[in-house]
Amino acid sequence: MTMEIDRNGLEVLDRVQCLGLLSTATIGRVGVTSGALPTILPVNFRLEGQEILIRSGEGAKMDVALRDAVVAFEVDDFDPIDHTGWSVVVTGITRSITDEDELERLRGIPIARWASGGNGHLVAISTDLVSGRRLGLRRR
Amino acid sequence: MTMEIDRNGLEVLDRVQCLGLLSTATIGRVGVTSGALPTILPVNFRLEGQEILIRSGEGAKMDVALRDAVVAFEVDDFDPIDHTGWSVVVTGITRSITDEDELERLRGIPIARWASGGNGHLVAISTDLVSGRRLGLRRR
Repeated sequence: MTMEIDRNGLEVLDRVQCLGLLSTATIGRVGVTSGALPTILPVNFRLEGQEILIRSGEGAKMDVALRDAVVAFEVDDFDPIDHTGWSVVVTGITRSITDEDELERLRGIPIARWASGGNGHLVAISTDLVSGRRLGLRRR
Repeated sequence: MTMEIDRNGLEVLDRVQCLGLLSTATIGRVGVTSGALPTILPVNFRLEGQEILIRSGEGAKMDVALRDAVVAFEVDDFDPIDHTGWSVVVTGITRSITDEDELERLRGIPIARWASGGNGHLVAISTDLVSGRRLGLRRR
């Protein structure tokens, strides 16, 4: 098994590795456009199948920003002492979950609310584009 | 002194508090548009005065994405156990630093290179819009 290294010397992670790392994390950051300006918002999330589930925050601005939008979603875990860590970036399309059956099915999936404070509706982000990098010597 | 609380119950941080937190951190995430798609990239950085300094990564795509662009820049520090932490988001304009005198002056400022692996040129991000939130009970 060969390891792909990018031009910056970082190990390139494949989709399976990236989704595996996403399944271990609970806080990510979503990059959206709000009022024609880019912004980044930390959010609690859960990976459910091939989709990222978040809750929209309260407030119309974020609701609009997450409505059928193309967004970036990033999760990382770095150790600033030993300079190891990884990052995964997803670019996907948001989808508001409004179907009653789907909401019922997802009711059992706990998404924490403390990071974003959001009490809004559930939003899924597709994982159309997934890329990841690992640096340092740590291996799974 | 009163504390401002947002609609999600998070403490609103003012500009001075936000810049103070940025000065304590060394890893942030920059949200850019690359190939017409949004993406988020973890980067080492330093706050220098009122500007964020990063190195562009190697590679033409990131160079283009950071050229006189409006970008979002985010730093956070969350404790998933006790549900405390903070986040600061900057929206600003990038500026490639090419002036020899300025490069000489900044030469003494250490910007680590391990997170992004970038060996590219120095880029400054203005801090035109700064917002921050703190959650939980921890106080500085």
